[in-house]
Amino acid sequence: MEKLRVTMQRVQPVDREVMAQTQARLDSLTKPPGSLGVLEDIARQVAGITRQVRPQLLKKCSVLMAADHGVVAEGVSAFPREVTPQMVLNFARGGAAMNVLARHVGAELVLVDIGVAADLPDMPGLLKKKVAYGTANMAQGPAMTGEQAVRAVEVGIEIVEGLVSQGFGLIGTGEMGIGNTTPSTAIVAAFSGLPVEEVVGRGTGVDDARLRSKIQAIERALEVNRPDPGDPLDVLSKVGGLEIAGLAGVMLGAAANQVPVMVDGFISGAAALVATRLSPAVKDYLIGSHLSEEPGHKVMLESIGIKPMLHMHMRLGEGTGAALAMTLVDAAIKILNEMATFADAGVSSALDCGGME
Amino acid sequence: MEKLRVTMQRVQPVDREVMAQTQARLDSLTKPPGSLGVLEDIARQVAGITRQVRPQLLKKCSVLMAADHGVVAEGVSAFPREVTPQMVLNFARGGAAMNVLARHVGAELVLVDIGVAADLPDMPGLLKKKVAYGTANMAQGPAMTGEQAVRAVEVGIEIVEGLVSQGFGLIGTGEMGIGNTTPSTAIVAAFSGLPVEEVVGRGTGVDDARLRSKIQAIERALEVNRPDPGDPLDVLSKVGGLEIAGLAGVMLGAAANQVPVMVDGFISGAAALVATRLSPAVKDYLIGSHLSEEPGHKVMLESIGIKPMLHMHMRLGEGTGAALAMTLVDAAIKILNEMATFADAGVSSALDCGGME
Repeated sequence: MEKLRVTMQRVQPVDREVMAQTQARLDSLTKPPGSLGVLEDIARQVAGITRQVRPQLLKKCSVLMAADHGVVAEGVSAFPREVTPQMVLNFARGGAAMNVLARHVGAELVLVDIGVAADLPDMPGLLKKKVAYGTANMAQGPAMTGEQAVRAVEVGIEIVEGLVSQGFGLIGTGEMGIGNTTPSTAIVAAFSGLPVEEVVGRGTGVDDARLRSKIQAIERALEVNRPDPGDPLDVLSKVGGLEIAGLAGVMLGAAANQVPVMVDGFISGAAALVATRLSPAVKDYLIGSHLSEEPGHKVMLESIGIKPMLHMHMRLGEGTGAALAMTLVDAAIKILNEMATFADAGVSSALDCGGME
Repeated sequence: MEKLRVTMQRVQPVDREVMAQTQARLDSLTKPPGSLGVLEDIARQVAGITRQVRPQLLKKCSVLMAADHGVVAEGVSAFPREVTPQMVLNFARGGAAMNVLARHVGAELVLVDIGVAADLPDMPGLLKKKVAYGTANMAQGPAMTGEQAVRAVEVGIEIVEGLVSQGFGLIGTGEMGIGNTTPSTAIVAAFSGLPVEEVVGRGTGVDDARLRSKIQAIERALEVNRPDPGDPLDVLSKVGGLEIAGLAGVMLGAAANQVPVMVDGFISGAAALVATRLSPAVKDYLIGSHLSEEPGHKVMLESIGIKPMLHMHMRLGEGTGAALAMTLVDAAIKILNEMATFADAGVSSALDCGGME
């Protein structure tokens, strides 16, 4: 708990003065002011986070946390639980979608076993940080003890501290865990107070019968556990997951270390909800990536105040959306550093003819 | 007119059989079926266009066409007309946003003077294909003669033919032309029948007074010229622009040569409207990129049936949105070629447990 407490205290507001200077530079470049939209927002945000008016390209890393969920016993997923360890092996061998996309954008991929319900072999690139062999079935009681939840958050903080010390400056969040849209839905329902039916989705693609089971399991979990929406650790431990806790820790740790962090899809969004409820200033360190097909994702992002850039109907997780969006962060930084100014290029600005608002 | 006629005849439907085979491969990869959303759609589309079940990465080129517009005399833009040739020089020197983003995604940039109202110096990378020194003022009469419009379309076709012969396999569309959201708005209004006020926007950022001038100029152009929405060349010549015509030619030429082409923002969308009205089969060769801030862009894309992936509030043009989206096309092709199958990876598919719909 001590590390979590200290980390929360270390999260500082971003530097608004640096952001204003970056905005002035953006407005001097050969384009109408603001015309690059979110690319300009990202450039300004990265400047405010890193305290550099013209930040250079950031070394990129995606953290992919894997864990299992006791609630799969309720028949909430289309895939069997063994797929979690099978997919960890697939990630370690480089064959999953996330491996392809991390390579595509030039991001290192760090795999973390934070709670897989199986013993995994030692493999290069796999960090073994298991807090438990999966969560308990939240439809019957708390998914985790308070101690387990805090420990999983602190694992995330420790991992990001290690990455920062290795020079990584842009962190992606991703996960693998059969059944993990179920606790994520419970988290958004608990915080928002919305009915489960409004924020639930089909996850990897369940049929109508399993969707009914999923809704019932989530409703039961909320009834049985009565998570307190005013206490993020209570919500996290009772109806969350180990990878969700770990990713919340990654986000807190990134913010405390003044490093931007990309929010992926629905599970990563649940982690962002927890992290920003623990420490509201974390929000300014988060960069949105894609809008998931899960209906609850939009609710989460709007509640946090994050805008997703990619509307691609993706629903895979693993960090795939965050990875794709990393190339847009690179683009934003290059815009700031590589474009000519009106003065450099001898181009008349709108100000010259008095026509701009 | 002969080249345009022949090119329109050469546009064939995409290969649905190849697309079905590509879909089967996508469904064999270690992810829930369909879970990569638009990435899978693009992989399938590129397969259908190129007639290859597993297409390899495509050599990328962006075509940036520059032209001027007589209608700027009506006070429709925040920038003076001299900015068009000034920006062409900026592109040639590599200092514009589009240069930065084309480099970022590894696309060659081909600059075309198709109608700048000034004589430009010879510069490496600039193709001089001027059809006219800008259009006439469409608020007073036709922007172009029918011959000029056809000639500009054919310039676009010729350019893409040259690029295809050099091995380029993915073409981006972009433009520069002070005032060119005005004819683009006129085109979408003419084809859709919607009131100008519903499809007009602030372009590079005009104030309220100029916005009123812009609306009036467009309404007058539609009244004076009475473009026939059933005759795309009539609409194009009367209320279009030389770069819009050229980009329509690029799209037609790409489709005729079985090469995918990326639609950028509002002006590129106007060109796509013209191209798909000339030859509806062109639609299947178009890949959406971003959703522009111009309200008429959504109307255009929905009318054509293209979905934009990037929601970044951009309104710069130049091909910047199309360039950013090219990296997503690369990602889609890599997914198809680099991911492991369920069988390769020893991962249980949803089918194994009978849970998938």
